[in-house]
Amino acid sequence: MAFLYSLDDWDTDLWMREMQHLDTSLDLRLWPNVGRPEDIDYALVWKPPPGELKKLPNLKAIFSLGAGVDHIYTDTDLPDDVPIIRVVDPNLTMRMSEYVVLHVLWHHRRQRIYNHFQTESKWHDLKQPAASETRVGVMGLGELGQDAAKKLKMMGFRVAGWSQSRKNIEGIDSFRGRGELKAFLNRTDILVCLLPLTDGTRGLLNGAVFKDLAKDGFGDGPVLINAGRGDLQVECDIVTALENGDLYAATLDVFQEEPLPKESPLWTHPRVTITPHNSAVSDPRAINGYILRQIKRHRAGEPLDNVIDREKGY
Amino acid sequence: MAFLYSLDDWDTDLWMREMQHLDTSLDLRLWPNVGRPEDIDYALVWKPPPGELKKLPNLKAIFSLGAGVDHIYTDTDLPDDVPIIRVVDPNLTMRMSEYVVLHVLWHHRRQRIYNHFQTESKWHDLKQPAASETRVGVMGLGELGQDAAKKLKMMGFRVAGWSQSRKNIEGIDSFRGRGELKAFLNRTDILVCLLPLTDGTRGLLNGAVFKDLAKDGFGDGPVLINAGRGDLQVECDIVTALENGDLYAATLDVFQEEPLPKESPLWTHPRVTITPHNSAVSDPRAINGYILRQIKRHRAGEPLDNVIDREKGY
Repeated sequence: MAFLYSLDDWDTDLWMREMQHLDTSLDLRLWPNVGRPEDIDYALVWKPPPGELKKLPNLKAIFSLGAGVDHIYTDTDLPDDVPIIRVVDPNLTMRMSEYVVLHVLWHHRRQRIYNHFQTESKWHDLKQPAASETRVGVMGLGELGQDAAKKLKMMGFRVAGWSQSRKNIEGIDSFRGRGELKAFLNRTDILVCLLPLTDGTRGLLNGAVFKDLAKDGFGDGPVLINAGRGDLQVECDIVTALENGDLYAATLDVFQEEPLPKESPLWTHPRVTITPHNSAVSDPRAINGYILRQIKRHRAGEPLDNVIDREKGY
Repeated sequence: MAFLYSLDDWDTDLWMREMQHLDTSLDLRLWPNVGRPEDIDYALVWKPPPGELKKLPNLKAIFSLGAGVDHIYTDTDLPDDVPIIRVVDPNLTMRMSEYVVLHVLWHHRRQRIYNHFQTESKWHDLKQPAASETRVGVMGLGELGQDAAKKLKMMGFRVAGWSQSRKNIEGIDSFRGRGELKAFLNRTDILVCLLPLTDGTRGLLNGAVFKDLAKDGFGDGPVLINAGRGDLQVECDIVTALENGDLYAATLDVFQEEPLPKESPLWTHPRVTITPHNSAVSDPRAINGYILRQIKRHRAGEPLDNVIDREKGY
C-alpha cells in the first residue's frame, strides 16, 4: 500500500516525517515522484494539479487537507468514483472556536476603543451591554460552526445559526436557506462567517447582506467576522459598508487574494482587524492520525467517514 | 420597613429609581438623610462612612455592593452583630468571565503582535500553541473565579486554581494556601487574579510571585491578568518584571490608585493593556432584585445567603 502526498506549498517534509513517525511501515510518495501509479491507494491533497489523481487506477480515497474542500476543485478533472474525505481535526475545531470567541468578545467588550483610550492615558468607562444583549449570528453550522456557536452561547451571547439545512442545537435559533437569510441578518449584531465556499456561497458577504444586519443593537453597530474563505466576501463592499455605517467594524482572517495585497485599504482601516489566515491551522500529527484510522477501518471493510457530497460541494 | 442607601460616589439616583420600580411600597432613604435611625431595617452600602451603620439600632443586614467586600472596612466601626451580605449577581459573574476569557485568548493567540503586524501591512504567521498547551492559573475560586475557570477549561485551556481551601471542580487542578503557591505558579503561563482583597492577599502580586511563573511554556512568556483589586498588586514590581522577563505582558483592570495616574509607566508600556476597572459592572436592576428576594426570605424567617465570614474577610 502506498500513500501519496500532493500538498502544493505546504511544508510536505513535516507532514511526511510525522506520518512516518506514526507508522514506519508506510510507503510514502511525494508528488510528482509518484512511482508506479497503480501502487497508490490513498492520497492527501491540497490544490491537486489537474488530472493527476485521475491517473491513479487503484486510488481508493482522496483526503482533503483543511476544513474547507473548495481547494480540491482546482483539479477540474477529478476521478468521479473516488470518495473525497474531509479531514476532521478536533484540534482545528478548538482553534477556530478560540479565534471566533476571542474576536466576538473583542468587539462586544469594545476593546478597540479602550486600546485607543490607553494611547491617550484616558481613564473612561463606556456603557457595556451584557452578552445576553448581544446577538451573534453564525453562518455555517458544520463541525466548526456548531462548536463556535455552542461556546458563544456558553459565554452568554444570544446565538443563531444560518445553514443550508435546519439544525437542532439546544439554545441556538436555526435559520435555513435563502428564504430565511434576511430574518437571520435582521436579528444579528455580530455576524460570524464559517461557511464553506461553493458556487452558492461565493460573494455572499456583500453590501446587500451588510445592509440587512441589525441596526437596533445595544453595541456600536454591526460587526463582520470572516474566518471561512476569502471568496465568500466582496472586499470593496466591506469598505463601502464601513463607510456608510452598514458595518461598524470587521475582523477578517481570509481574503479574496492572499497574502492580502499591500495596497488594500483594509490594512489601514481603523476599525478592521486583519489576521493572516491563521484562525485555525492544521496539525500534521492529529490529521495524519485521523487518516490512518480511516484507512485502517476502510481496509477492514467499514465505510469511510466524512465523505464529501460532491453535489453540495462540502 | 425602611431601606437605606449609602453608596459613596455611585449613581444613587439610578439605584433608588430601579428599586422603586421593583417595589413601589418600599420606604427608601439616602444617607445622610436617614430620618429616624430606628426605622432602618436593611442597608446597601459602598464604602460606608465610619460609625454610621452602628447608629441604626434595628439594622438586620448590611448588603455590600460589588463582588469584593474589602471596601466595607472603610467603616472601622461596623456593628458586630449585623450580618454583612455579599451581593451575588449572575450577570456580574458572566461579565467577569467575558473579560477573563477575552484577555486570556488575546494573549494566547498573540493578537497584540498581529495588531502590530497590521500597522506595517505585514502578512506573517506565527507559531501558535493549542489552548491545551497553555496553562492558565486562576487565583481565587469564589463565584467569579469558578465561573471563569470553567469557561477557560471549556475553551480548551489547561486550568488550575489557587485558593484558601481546596476546591473540587471537574477538570481543574486545585492548589491551596501558601504552601502550594509555588507549585501553582510553576505550572502557570497565564495568571488570572480574581482574589478578594484581605490582609492576607494585599500586595501578593509582587516580584517574587512573578519570578515563580512558568518560564518553559509554548507561548511568549508569563502573563498577568488582574481583575480583582488594585491593592493585590505591587505596580513597581510589575514594571520591573516586564523589564527583566519575569512577565512578558499584562492586562490590568484595577490599580493601586484609581483612576490610574497619568504618570504611571503602565499606561504606555507596549505589552500592557489597561482597562478602567470595568471588567464587571454591577447591574442595579439585577442586584436590587437579589436584595429584595433576600429580604423577603429573611422576613419569612429563612436564613440569609452569602453572609460574609468576618474572620476571613470575604
